[in-house]
Amino acid sequence: MYKQNKFTEWLNNRSPVQLIIIFYAIAVTIACLLLGAPFAQKEGISLPFMEVLFTSVSAVSVTGLSVVSIVDTFNTLGIFLLAFVLQFGGIGVMTIGTFVWILIGKKIGLKERRLIMVDHNQISFQGMVKLMRGILRLILLVELVGFLILGTYFLNYFSSWQEAYFNGFFASISATTNAGFDITGQSLVPFKDDYFVQLINISLIIIGAIGFPVLIEVKDYLFSTSEERKFMRFSLFTKVTTLTYGALLLFSFIITILLEWSHFFADKKWHEIIFYSIFHSTTTRSAGLSTMDVSLLTEQTQLVTSMLMFIGASPSSVGGGIRTTTFALVIIFILTFARGKKNVTIFRREIHEEDLFKAVVVTLMAVFLFMTSVVIVSSLENYSLGSIIFEVSSAFGTTGLSMGITAGLSEGSQIVLMFLMFIGRIGLLTFLFSFKKEKKGGEFHYPKERIIIG
Amino acid sequence: MYKQNKFTEWLNNRSPVQLIIIFYAIAVTIACLLLGAPFAQKEGISLPFMEVLFTSVSAVSVTGLSVVSIVDTFNTLGIFLLAFVLQFGGIGVMTIGTFVWILIGKKIGLKERRLIMVDHNQISFQGMVKLMRGILRLILLVELVGFLILGTYFLNYFSSWQEAYFNGFFASISATTNAGFDITGQSLVPFKDDYFVQLINISLIIIGAIGFPVLIEVKDYLFSTSEERKFMRFSLFTKVTTLTYGALLLFSFIITILLEWSHFFADKKWHEIIFYSIFHSTTTRSAGLSTMDVSLLTEQTQLVTSMLMFIGASPSSVGGGIRTTTFALVIIFILTFARGKKNVTIFRREIHEEDLFKAVVVTLMAVFLFMTSVVIVSSLENYSLGSIIFEVSSAFGTTGLSMGITAGLSEGSQIVLMFLMFIGRIGLLTFLFSFKKEKKGGEFHYPKERIIIG
Ligand SMILES: [K+]
Ligand SMILES: [K+]
Repeated sequence: MYKQNKFTEWLNNRSPVQLIIIFYAIAVTIACLLLGAPFAQKEGISLPFMEVLFTSVSAVSVTGLSVVSIVDTFNTLGIFLLAFVLQFGGIGVMTIGTFVWILIGKKIGLKERRLIMVDHNQISFQGMVKLMRGILRLILLVELVGFLILGTYFLNYFSSWQEAYFNGFFASISATTNAGFDITGQSLVPFKDDYFVQLINISLIIIGAIGFPVLIEVKDYLFSTSEERKFMRFSLFTKVTTLTYGALLLFSFIITILLEWSHFFADKKWHEIIFYSIFHSTTTRSAGLSTMDVSLLTEQTQLVTSMLMFIGASPSSVGGGIRTTTFALVIIFILTFARGKKNVTIFRREIHEEDLFKAVVVTLMAVFLFMTSVVIVSSLENYSLGSIIFEVSSAFGTTGLSMGITAGLSEGSQIVLMFLMFIGRIGLLTFLFSFKKEKKGGEFHYPKERIIIG
Repeated sequence: MYKQNKFTEWLNNRSPVQLIIIFYAIAVTIACLLLGAPFAQKEGISLPFMEVLFTSVSAVSVTGLSVVSIVDTFNTLGIFLLAFVLQFGGIGVMTIGTFVWILIGKKIGLKERRLIMVDHNQISFQGMVKLMRGILRLILLVELVGFLILGTYFLNYFSSWQEAYFNGFFASISATTNAGFDITGQSLVPFKDDYFVQLINISLIIIGAIGFPVLIEVKDYLFSTSEERKFMRFSLFTKVTTLTYGALLLFSFIITILLEWSHFFADKKWHEIIFYSIFHSTTTRSAGLSTMDVSLLTEQTQLVTSMLMFIGASPSSVGGGIRTTTFALVIIFILTFARGKKNVTIFRREIHEEDLFKAVVVTLMAVFLFMTSVVIVSSLENYSLGSIIFEVSSAFGTTGLSMGITAGLSEGSQIVLMFLMFIGRIGLLTFLFSFKKEKKGGEFHYPKERIIIG
């Protein structure tokens, strides 16, 4: 009894951020136990610990980078377990935790509410439980629809219905959670000419990566009467993140066509060019599935793709990176500052100063983290700088697109990538705040002095 | 008469920042006329316009990147003219302008004072003219001493005293202005075993790059009585910039030894290793002179060197980059924010919020500028990504260290590098503020709304 009380007390003294990190760590441990177990692996396969760990971190963070071929390593049960881990990591340890708590009738206290708030970076306490429940229902519905459509359609591709629906099941989860794992052995390359499969995948990917609050707001809007709509307005967050997401898609689409025009696209038809580019720009947000081998693209496309992966998906989504709103706020901040204004406004709303600070800190820290990682990995490996930058960006953006070098990396580099996937998924802000001490009274002020800047 | 009035009026309506940019542009034009003239070039040489322009931009911005060999292209008069341009660009168009104004007895008005203030990013108007005069005297004195020592010492190297002192003259100016141009044809590699020449060069480089206000404060301190010293304190700027400069030197020194230990330094003696590393870490701040061929170093050393060049030298110095104080403030900002404090303090002084904003904007803009440049240049060239990153960093940091690819770049890439050298030298902040509109009354405020970040 005494021991348990002590543990509860210890748990209660953790900050929400620390708890989230602990939960993620537990999730990785469980994933290791599940995926490392002999019953999950094919006969004759016995994965070494580092490969189990890497797969687990990649799965919990829904990145999709892999040191092993999933289809050659895991048996049917193993793939089901992997799908479960993706679900757990993608939709969020916290969401499921909340749901379980609701199911067992436990009243959710302030502490637990705050916990969820930080994980998805939500601001107000109100309606948090309702939001979480809504998110989970919505995502499961989306995945079900994806599964039914893809599974049925795959009857054209596979000889047995079991195989077709099994592939549809995994593909739906991998796309919706933006996990990017595949059981085809070569991502969506086998479907490079099947625009229907691509369009379904693109839809699932965007639903997962656009941000949960956006989905909820859109759902509320669609299910309201025209009278109610007069009084509705989309939140600033929804506007900013959707606009940024769209702008990045468009930019990525255009630049890919331009950079590959006389290279990868040289012998392609116009509709192939359009679909390759649309799918590529969607997948760089955070998905990691691909219809073409990225190592065949030009070095510039790879570099631009790296930057786009570094930016990543919307906050409160299944994606990683610095996040769309961070990127948008940084751009707005610079433009406003350059024009000599002091207050940063967008969509007729003034941005809170602390949010700007957060955006700036996240971006700067991410740049430092990125550079340090590239230097460490490049000092351990003989691969070209371009592919190392690509793989590091892919890990931080939890994207999972690969130049094909991950399996060949040394253990040191794999540890760097695991760290990046972890940070990329929980978000740099969460990570930074785990070191934050609670405020104790007012701060002491020193006199201000000006300093010369650049 | 009417026309002249109109010009004066136009000039008066320019912001200080715009005037500085105009002055720099004029300086480049004059440099083009001087260096492009037949009397400056060796017989049989006729530089194409683009090469004259590139050399001029590189000289005015005291970068030292070059598409031609200085010693094979210019005659003695040409090299004198180049030294004059370096002097003009390094010590600053504004400083010389002020001095000329003082000489001709023109009373310096508020407008001109403000002009100088922005160029060296000084904050208070007071003592500006005195400061400028002091800087110029000090730098000229340092150059004179450098010239006498190096010239006399070079009697050991050259057959005639004219040659020795001519080389001493150019070397002293190139080191003090951190220009990095050389007339040996291979930088300071001929002096790789001459530690005396290296120490003199290191001293001159640091004096040029540590920041003019630091020099003035140190001079004031040295020439004051012990009674006066009790009431003196070094400014926050001096403390921050000197500490950062020193920390970067130390970091660079250690990392170079570590990364080259079993590579470039494998067959070197301990004192060679120490001097190669000391000189390399000094030169990466902004100088660009070198005692070894950087293309022989490991890819990681080149990458770290690129980052160090990107950071650059102190503000109000002859160097470029984002500047030491910018880097320091960004680091302090992140650490303070991560610890959950709101006020950023250093050396028992609170940093002004606007200075933090400036530091952050400069760094973020520089990162964007850097990435865009790398993508453009790499799409135009076939060189390795590592060498393109190196050359781009070298241009922005106005360092001038080179992987040897600058001469082989296409005109498009050369234009990118010229733009970077220009921005790097005048400083991103100056550049940004040239778009700034004058404030007109109070700003309109929109309601604030919170947003989710990363
Ligand atoms: K992914
Ligand atoms: K230089």
